[in-house]
Amino acid sequence: MVNYPGGVALARRQTLKQTKTVTFGKRGMTFEAELNASNAYYLAQGLAVIHKKPTPVQIVKVDYPKRSRAKITEAYFRQASTTDYSGVYQGHYLDFEAKETRNKSSFPLKNFHDHQINHMANVLEQKGLAFVLLHFTVLARTFLLKASDLIPFYQQHEGQKSIPLAFIEKHGYELPTNQLPSMPYLDCVQQILGGESHFKAKTS
Amino acid sequence: MVNYPGGVALARRQTLKQTKTVTFGKRGMTFEAELNASNAYYLAQGLAVIHKKPTPVQIVKVDYPKRSRAKITEAYFRQASTTDYSGVYQGHYLDFEAKETRNKSSFPLKNFHDHQINHMANVLEQKGLAFVLLHFTVLARTFLLKASDLIPFYQQHEGQKSIPLAFIEKHGYELPTNQLPSMPYLDCVQQILGGESHFKAKTS
Repeated sequence: MVNYPGGVALARRQTLKQTKTVTFGKRGMTFEAELNASNAYYLAQGLAVIHKKPTPVQIVKVDYPKRSRAKITEAYFRQASTTDYSGVYQGHYLDFEAKETRNKSSFPLKNFHDHQINHMANVLEQKGLAFVLLHFTVLARTFLLKASDLIPFYQQHEGQKSIPLAFIEKHGYELPTNQLPSMPYLDCVQQILGGESHFKAKTS
Repeated sequence: MVNYPGGVALARRQTLKQTKTVTFGKRGMTFEAELNASNAYYLAQGLAVIHKKPTPVQIVKVDYPKRSRAKITEAYFRQASTTDYSGVYQGHYLDFEAKETRNKSSFPLKNFHDHQINHMANVLEQKGLAFVLLHFTVLARTFLLKASDLIPFYQQHEGQKSIPLAFIEKHGYELPTNQLPSMPYLDCVQQILGGESHFKAKTS
Protein backbone atom coordinates (compact mmCIF):
# COMPACT_ATOMS: atom_id res chain seq x y z
CA MET A 1 0.00 0.00 0.00
CA VAL A 2 1.20 3.49 -0.83
CA ASN A 3 2.27 5.23 2.35
CA TYR A 4 0.21 8.42 2.46
CA PRO A 5 -2.36 9.62 4.99
CA GLY A 6 -5.27 8.45 2.85
CA GLY A 7 -3.91 4.96 3.33
CA VAL A 8 -5.07 5.14 6.91
CA ALA A 9 -8.60 5.71 5.69
CA LEU A 10 -8.38 2.74 3.41
CA ALA A 11 -6.90 0.52 6.11
CA ARG A 12 -9.49 1.51 8.70
CA ARG A 13 -12.30 1.09 6.23
CA GLN A 14 -11.14 -2.41 5.39
CA THR A 15 -11.17 -3.29 9.08
CA LEU A 16 -14.61 -1.86 9.59
CA LYS A 17 -16.00 -3.57 6.53
CA GLN A 18 -15.02 -6.90 8.01
CA THR A 19 -17.18 -6.32 11.07
CA LYS A 20 -20.23 -6.10 8.80
CA THR A 21 -21.93 -3.47 10.95
CA VAL A 22 -22.56 -1.00 8.16
CA THR A 23 -24.48 1.97 9.48
CA PHE A 24 -23.61 4.49 6.76
CA GLY A 25 -24.23 4.49 3.06
CA LYS A 26 -27.61 2.85 3.11
CA ARG A 27 -29.38 2.43 -0.21
CA GLY A 28 -31.97 5.05 -0.90
CA MET A 29 -30.21 7.82 1.02
CA THR A 30 -30.10 11.15 -0.73
CA PHE A 31 -26.77 12.46 -1.98
CA GLU A 32 -26.70 15.08 0.78
CA ALA A 33 -27.49 12.51 3.47
CA GLU A 34 -24.76 10.22 2.14
CA LEU A 35 -22.29 13.10 2.17
CA ASN A 36 -23.21 14.09 5.72
CA ALA A 37 -22.87 10.49 6.82
CA SER A 38 -19.46 10.33 5.15
CA ASN A 39 -18.39 13.47 7.01
CA ALA A 40 -19.64 11.97 10.27
CA TYR A 41 -17.59 8.88 9.49
CA TYR A 42 -14.47 10.92 8.74
CA LEU A 43 -14.94 12.85 11.99
CA ALA A 44 -15.54 9.76 14.11
CA GLN A 45 -12.44 8.11 12.65
CA GLY A 46 -10.32 11.20 13.26
CA LEU A 47 -9.61 11.55 9.54
CA ALA A 48 -10.99 15.03 8.85
CA VAL A 49 -13.18 17.72 10.39
CA ILE A 50 -15.66 18.75 7.71
CA HIS A 51 -19.05 20.28 8.50
CA LYS A 52 -21.98 21.45 6.45
CA LYS A 53 -22.81 25.04 7.25
CA PRO A 54 -26.27 25.77 8.61
CA THR A 55 -28.82 27.17 6.17
CA PRO A 56 -28.60 30.95 6.45
CA VAL A 57 -31.83 32.37 7.80
CA GLN A 58 -32.85 35.95 8.47
CA ILE A 59 -34.72 35.91 11.77
CA VAL A 60 -37.41 38.55 12.09
CA LYS A 61 -39.60 37.56 15.01
CA VAL A 62 -38.99 35.33 18.04
CA ASP A 63 -41.43 34.37 20.79
CA TYR A 64 -40.08 33.63 24.24
CA PRO A 65 -42.86 31.65 25.93
CA LYS A 66 -42.59 31.08 29.68
CA ARG A 67 -41.10 27.72 30.69
CA SER A 68 -40.52 26.84 27.03
CA ARG A 69 -37.78 27.32 24.51
CA ALA A 70 -37.65 30.30 22.18
CA LYS A 71 -39.76 29.89 19.05
CA ILE A 72 -38.94 31.66 15.80
CA THR A 73 -42.25 32.71 14.25
CA GLU A 74 -41.03 34.75 11.29
CA ALA A 75 -37.88 34.16 9.29
CA TYR A 76 -36.72 34.06 5.68
CA PHE A 77 -34.14 32.12 3.73
CA ARG A 78 -31.05 34.12 2.82
CA GLN A 79 -28.70 33.34 -0.03
CA ALA A 80 -25.49 31.73 1.22
CA SER A 81 -22.37 33.82 0.67
CA THR A 82 -20.10 30.80 0.67
CA THR A 83 -20.15 27.14 -0.28
CA ASP A 84 -21.94 24.61 1.93
CA TYR A 85 -19.04 22.52 3.20
CA SER A 86 -15.72 23.41 4.75
CA GLY A 87 -13.20 22.11 7.19
CA VAL A 88 -9.70 20.81 7.70
CA TYR A 89 -7.93 17.67 6.55
CA GLN A 90 -4.33 17.09 7.64
CA GLY A 91 -3.68 20.82 7.89
CA HIS A 92 -5.32 21.55 4.53
CA TYR A 93 -8.34 23.81 4.24
CA LEU A 94 -11.10 22.17 2.20
CA ASP A 95 -14.06 24.10 0.84
CA PHE A 96 -16.69 22.67 -1.45
CA GLU A 97 -20.18 22.69 -2.80
CA ALA A 98 -22.09 19.48 -3.52
CA LYS A 99 -24.76 19.27 -6.20
CA GLU A 100 -26.67 16.58 -8.01
CA THR A 101 -28.44 16.23 -11.31
CA ARG A 102 -30.71 13.69 -13.01
CA ASN A 103 -29.06 14.52 -16.35
CA LYS A 104 -26.97 11.78 -17.90
CA SER A 105 -24.54 13.56 -20.18
CA SER A 106 -23.90 16.97 -18.64
CA PHE A 107 -24.12 18.94 -15.41
CA PRO A 108 -26.28 22.12 -15.44
CA LEU A 109 -24.30 25.28 -14.66
CA LYS A 110 -27.33 26.92 -13.06
CA ASN A 111 -26.44 24.90 -9.98
CA PHE A 112 -23.67 27.41 -9.31
CA HIS A 113 -24.11 31.07 -8.50
CA ASP A 114 -21.69 33.90 -9.11
CA HIS A 115 -21.11 34.49 -5.42
CA GLN A 116 -20.13 30.86 -4.92
CA ILE A 117 -17.74 31.02 -7.85
CA ASN A 118 -16.26 34.20 -6.34
CA HIS A 119 -15.95 32.55 -2.96
CA MET A 120 -14.11 29.58 -4.47
CA ALA A 121 -11.77 31.94 -6.32
CA ASN A 122 -11.04 33.72 -3.01
CA VAL A 123 -10.30 30.40 -1.34
CA LEU A 124 -7.89 29.44 -4.14
CA GLU A 125 -6.11 32.76 -3.70
CA GLN A 126 -5.59 31.87 -0.01
CA LYS A 127 -4.16 28.49 -1.05
CA GLY A 128 -7.17 26.53 0.14
CA LEU A 129 -8.46 23.52 -1.78
CA ALA A 130 -11.81 24.44 -3.32
CA PHE A 131 -13.87 22.03 -5.39
CA VAL A 132 -17.33 20.80 -6.26
CA LEU A 133 -18.77 17.34 -5.86
CA LEU A 134 -20.99 16.53 -8.83
CA HIS A 135 -23.39 13.66 -8.39
CA PHE A 136 -25.14 12.08 -11.37
CA THR A 137 -28.12 10.42 -9.73
CA VAL A 138 -29.19 8.23 -12.64
CA LEU A 139 -25.65 7.19 -13.54
CA ALA A 140 -24.79 6.64 -9.86
CA ARG A 141 -21.46 8.37 -10.49
CA THR A 142 -19.91 11.16 -8.44
CA PHE A 143 -16.99 13.36 -9.41
CA LEU A 144 -14.76 15.81 -7.65
CA LEU A 145 -13.97 18.75 -9.94
CA LYS A 146 -11.41 21.26 -8.71
CA ALA A 147 -12.49 24.91 -8.63
CA SER A 148 -9.36 25.65 -10.64
CA ASP A 149 -10.94 23.64 -13.47
CA LEU A 150 -14.54 24.73 -12.89
CA ILE A 151 -13.94 28.49 -12.71
CA PRO A 152 -12.26 28.91 -16.13
CA PHE A 153 -14.98 26.75 -17.72
CA TYR A 154 -17.68 28.80 -16.00
CA GLN A 155 -16.12 32.06 -17.17
CA GLN A 156 -15.39 30.93 -20.73
CA HIS A 157 -18.79 29.34 -21.37
CA GLU A 158 -21.20 31.95 -20.10
CA GLY A 159 -23.67 31.16 -22.85
CA GLN A 160 -23.41 27.44 -22.26
CA LYS A 161 -25.91 25.92 -19.88
CA SER A 162 -24.03 22.88 -18.70
CA ILE A 163 -20.67 21.13 -18.32
CA PRO A 164 -20.39 18.06 -20.56
CA LEU A 165 -19.76 14.79 -18.76
CA ALA A 166 -16.74 14.29 -21.02
CA PHE A 167 -15.14 17.46 -19.58
CA ILE A 168 -15.83 16.25 -16.04
CA GLU A 169 -14.45 12.79 -16.82
CA LYS A 170 -11.32 14.32 -18.29
CA HIS A 171 -10.60 16.94 -15.61
CA GLY A 172 -12.35 15.54 -12.54
CA TYR A 173 -11.70 12.70 -10.15
CA GLU A 174 -14.35 10.02 -9.92
CA LEU A 175 -15.18 8.87 -6.41
CA PRO A 176 -14.67 5.13 -6.02
CA THR A 177 -17.80 3.14 -5.25
CA ASN A 178 -17.69 2.30 -1.62
CA GLN A 179 -19.83 1.33 1.32
CA LEU A 180 -18.19 3.10 4.23
CA PRO A 181 -18.06 5.98 3.78
CA SER A 182 -20.34 5.93 0.77
CA MET A 183 -18.91 9.20 -0.60
CA PRO A 184 -15.16 8.75 -0.08
CA TYR A 185 -14.13 12.10 -1.52
CA LEU A 186 -11.03 12.28 0.68
CA ASP A 187 -9.52 9.57 -1.51
CA CYS A 188 -9.69 12.07 -4.39
CA VAL A 189 -8.47 14.93 -2.20
CA GLN A 190 -5.48 12.84 -1.22
CA GLN A 191 -4.68 12.19 -4.88
CA ILE A 192 -4.75 15.91 -5.56
CA LEU A 193 -2.62 16.78 -2.54
CA GLY A 194 -0.20 13.94 -3.05
CA GLY A 195 -0.07 14.34 -6.79
CA GLU A 196 -1.13 10.71 -7.07
CA SER A 197 -2.60 9.73 -10.41
CA HIS A 198 -2.86 5.95 -10.27
CA PHE A 199 -6.56 6.01 -9.41
CA LYS A 200 -7.34 8.47 -12.13
CA ALA A 201 -5.47 6.37 -14.67
CA LYS A 202 -7.37 3.32 -13.52
CA THR A 203 -10.81 4.81 -14.09
CA SER A 204 -10.24 6.80 -17.27
CA MET B 1 10.05 45.45 8.11
CA VAL B 2 10.09 41.72 8.67
CA ASN B 3 9.31 39.94 5.44
CA TYR B 4 6.33 37.75 6.25
CA PRO B 5 2.80 37.74 4.79
CA GLY B 6 1.35 39.69 7.73
CA GLY B 7 3.61 42.54 6.68
CA VAL B 8 1.34 43.05 3.74
CA ALA B 9 -1.56 43.62 6.11
CA LEU B 10 0.45 46.16 8.06
CA ALA B 11 1.65 47.93 4.95
CA ARG B 12 -1.80 48.13 3.39
CA ARG B 13 -3.31 49.30 6.63
CA GLN B 14 -0.78 52.11 6.89
CA THR B 15 -1.67 53.23 3.39
CA LEU B 16 -5.36 53.12 4.10
CA LYS B 17 -5.00 54.96 7.37
CA GLN B 18 -3.45 57.89 5.53
CA THR B 19 -6.52 58.28 3.36
CA LYS B 20 -8.60 58.94 6.49
CA THR B 21 -11.66 57.26 5.04
CA VAL B 22 -12.26 54.94 7.96
CA THR B 23 -15.43 52.98 7.43
CA PHE B 24 -14.74 50.10 9.79
CA GLY B 25 -14.12 49.97 13.51
CA LYS B 26 -16.52 52.70 14.47
CA ARG B 27 -16.88 53.51 18.15
CA GLY B 28 -19.86 51.89 19.77
CA MET B 29 -19.90 48.85 17.52
CA THR B 30 -20.38 45.58 19.33
CA PHE B 31 -17.48 43.15 19.50
CA GLU B 32 -19.20 40.84 17.04
CA ALA B 33 -19.88 43.66 14.60
CA GLU B 34 -16.26 44.79 14.83
CA LEU B 35 -15.10 41.26 14.17
CA ASN B 36 -17.39 40.84 11.19
CA ALA B 37 -16.20 44.18 9.81
CA SER B 38 -12.60 43.05 10.29
CA ASN B 39 -13.34 39.84 8.39
CA ALA B 40 -14.98 41.88 5.61
CA TYR B 41 -11.85 44.02 5.50
CA TYR B 42 -9.56 40.99 5.33
CA LEU B 43 -11.70 39.54 2.53
CA ALA B 44 -11.83 42.76 0.54
CA GLN B 45 -8.06 43.16 0.82
CA GLY B 46 -7.45 39.57 -0.26
CA LEU B 47 -5.74 38.78 3.05
CA ALA B 48 -7.95 35.95 4.33
CA VAL B 49 -11.31 34.28 3.75
CA ILE B 50 -12.98 34.01 7.15
CA HIS B 51 -16.75 33.78 7.59
CA LYS B 52 -19.06 33.58 10.54
CA LYS B 53 -21.29 30.54 10.28
CA PRO B 54 -25.04 31.12 10.15
CA THR B 55 -26.98 30.53 13.37
CA PRO B 56 -28.16 26.91 13.27
CA VAL B 57 -31.94 26.76 13.11
CA GLN B 58 -34.26 23.78 13.02
CA ILE B 59 -36.97 24.64 10.52
CA VAL B 60 -40.37 23.09 11.26
CA LYS B 61 -42.91 24.96 9.16
CA VAL B 62 -42.59 27.01 5.96
CA ASP B 63 -45.30 28.90 4.11
CA TYR B 64 -44.99 29.35 0.35
CA PRO B 65 -47.29 32.24 -0.45
CA LYS B 66 -48.09 32.93 -4.11
CA ARG B 67 -45.94 35.62 -5.72
CA SER B 68 -43.96 36.05 -2.53
CA ARG B 69 -40.88 34.50 -1.01
CA ALA B 70 -41.03 31.53 1.34
CA LYS B 71 -41.75 32.43 4.94
CA ILE B 72 -40.57 30.31 7.84
CA THR B 73 -43.34 30.35 10.45
CA GLU B 74 -42.01 27.85 12.96
CA ALA B 75 -38.38 27.21 13.79
CA TYR B 76 -36.12 26.71 16.80
CA PHE B 77 -32.56 27.53 17.68
CA ARG B 78 -30.23 24.55 17.68
CA GLN B 79 -26.97 24.33 19.56
CA ALA B 80 -23.98 24.81 17.27
CA SER B 81 -21.76 21.76 16.89
CA THR B 82 -18.74 23.82 15.94
CA THR B 83 -17.21 27.22 16.63
CA ASP B 84 -18.65 30.32 14.99
CA TYR B 85 -15.80 31.36 12.71
CA SER B 86 -13.66 29.49 10.25
CA GLY B 87 -11.78 29.97 7.05
CA VAL B 88 -8.42 30.04 5.34
CA TYR B 89 -5.40 32.30 5.68
CA GLN B 90 -2.38 31.64 3.44
CA GLY B 91 -3.18 27.94 3.24
CA HIS B 92 -3.79 27.64 6.98
CA TYR B 93 -7.14 26.54 8.35
CA LEU B 94 -8.34 28.91 11.08
CA ASP B 95 -11.18 28.04 13.43
CA PHE B 96 -12.27 30.16 16.35
CA GLU B 97 -14.91 31.24 18.76
CA ALA B 98 -15.27 34.88 19.87
CA LYS B 99 -16.67 35.82 23.27
CA GLU B 100 -16.85 38.91 25.43
CA THR B 101 -17.22 39.66 29.12
CA ARG B 102 -17.78 42.71 31.30
CA ASN B 103 -15.53 41.18 33.97
CA LYS B 104 -12.24 42.94 34.59
CA SER B 105 -9.97 40.29 36.05
CA SER B 106 -11.10 36.98 34.60
CA PHE B 107 -13.02 35.37 31.75
CA PRO B 108 -16.00 33.14 32.67
CA LEU B 109 -15.59 29.55 31.45
CA LYS B 110 -19.34 29.12 31.04
CA ASN B 111 -18.86 30.90 27.70
CA PHE B 112 -17.50 27.63 26.33
CA HIS B 113 -19.39 24.40 25.94
CA ASP B 114 -18.01 20.88 25.92
CA HIS B 115 -18.92 20.33 22.28
CA GLN B 116 -16.98 23.45 21.25
CA ILE B 117 -13.96 22.30 23.24
CA ASN B 118 -14.25 18.90 21.54
CA HIS B 119 -14.50 20.55 18.14
CA MET B 120 -11.37 22.61 18.78
CA ALA B 121 -9.52 19.47 19.92
CA ASN B 122 -10.57 17.76 16.66
CA VAL B 123 -9.31 20.72 14.65
CA LEU B 124 -5.95 20.63 16.44
CA GLU B 125 -5.67 16.92 15.65
CA GLN B 126 -6.10 17.79 11.95
CA LYS B 127 -3.34 20.42 12.29
CA GLY B 128 -5.70 23.36 12.01
CA LEU B 129 -5.19 26.52 14.07
CA ALA B 130 -7.97 26.70 16.67
CA PHE B 131 -8.28 29.55 19.14
CA VAL B 132 -10.64 31.84 21.01
CA LEU B 133 -10.84 35.61 20.88
CA LEU B 134 -11.56 36.95 24.37
CA HIS B 135 -12.83 40.50 24.54
CA PHE B 136 -12.85 42.40 27.84
CA THR B 137 -15.45 45.08 27.15
CA VAL B 138 -14.70 47.33 30.12
CA LEU B 139 -10.94 47.05 29.76
CA ALA B 140 -11.18 47.46 25.97
CA ARG B 141 -8.63 44.68 25.59
CA THR B 142 -8.88 41.63 23.32
CA PHE B 143 -6.75 38.50 23.43
CA LEU B 144 -6.20 35.54 21.19
CA LEU B 145 -5.77 32.38 23.27
CA LYS B 146 -4.78 29.23 21.42
CA ALA B 147 -7.00 26.19 21.92
CA SER B 148 -3.84 24.29 22.84
CA ASP B 149 -3.62 26.58 25.92
CA LEU B 150 -7.37 26.81 26.59
CA ILE B 151 -8.17 23.09 26.45
CA PRO B 152 -5.73 21.93 29.16
CA PHE B 153 -6.87 24.80 31.40
CA TYR B 154 -10.51 23.89 30.79
CA GLN B 155 -9.86 20.23 31.59
CA GLN B 156 -7.66 20.83 34.65
CA HIS B 157 -9.90 23.44 36.26
CA GLU B 158 -13.33 21.90 36.00
CA GLY B 159 -14.35 23.32 39.37
CA GLN B 160 -13.06 26.77 38.50
CA LYS B 161 -15.52 29.18 36.98
CA SER B 162 -13.21 31.47 35.05
CA ILE B 163 -9.79 31.97 33.50
CA PRO B 164 -7.75 34.63 35.34
CA LEU B 165 -6.67 37.58 33.23
CA ALA B 166 -3.09 36.89 34.38
CA PHE B 167 -3.23 33.46 32.67
CA ILE B 168 -4.58 35.02 29.50
CA GLU B 169 -1.92 37.75 29.56
CA LYS B 170 0.79 35.14 30.01
CA HIS B 171 -0.33 32.60 27.43
CA GLY B 172 -2.40 34.69 25.03
CA TYR B 173 -1.64 37.26 22.36
CA GLU B 174 -3.11 40.69 22.86
CA LEU B 175 -4.60 42.28 19.74
CA PRO B 176 -2.98 45.62 18.98
CA THR B 177 -5.30 48.61 19.15
CA ASN B 178 -6.09 49.57 15.64
CA GLN B 179 -8.60 51.39 13.49
CA LEU B 180 -8.68 49.36 10.32
CA PRO B 181 -9.43 46.57 10.89
CA SER B 182 -10.46 47.23 14.45
CA MET B 183 -9.87 43.60 15.48
CA PRO B 184 -6.57 42.75 13.76
CA TYR B 185 -6.36 39.18 14.98
CA LEU B 186 -4.41 38.07 11.91
CA ASP B 187 -1.42 39.95 13.34
CA CYS B 188 -1.50 37.49 16.25
CA VAL B 189 -2.12 34.53 13.96
CA GLN B 190 0.92 35.53 11.95
CA GLN B 191 3.03 35.64 15.11
CA ILE B 192 1.91 32.14 15.99
CA LEU B 193 2.52 30.77 12.50
CA GLY B 194 5.79 32.56 12.03
CA GLY B 195 6.97 31.93 15.56
CA GLU B 196 7.41 35.70 15.92
CA SER B 197 7.52 36.93 19.48
CA HIS B 198 8.52 40.59 19.22
CA PHE B 199 4.97 41.88 19.61
CA LYS B 200 4.29 39.68 22.59
CA ALA B 201 7.48 40.86 24.29
CA LYS B 202 6.51 44.46 23.59
CA THR B 203 3.11 44.25 25.27
CA SER B 204 3.86 41.96 28.24
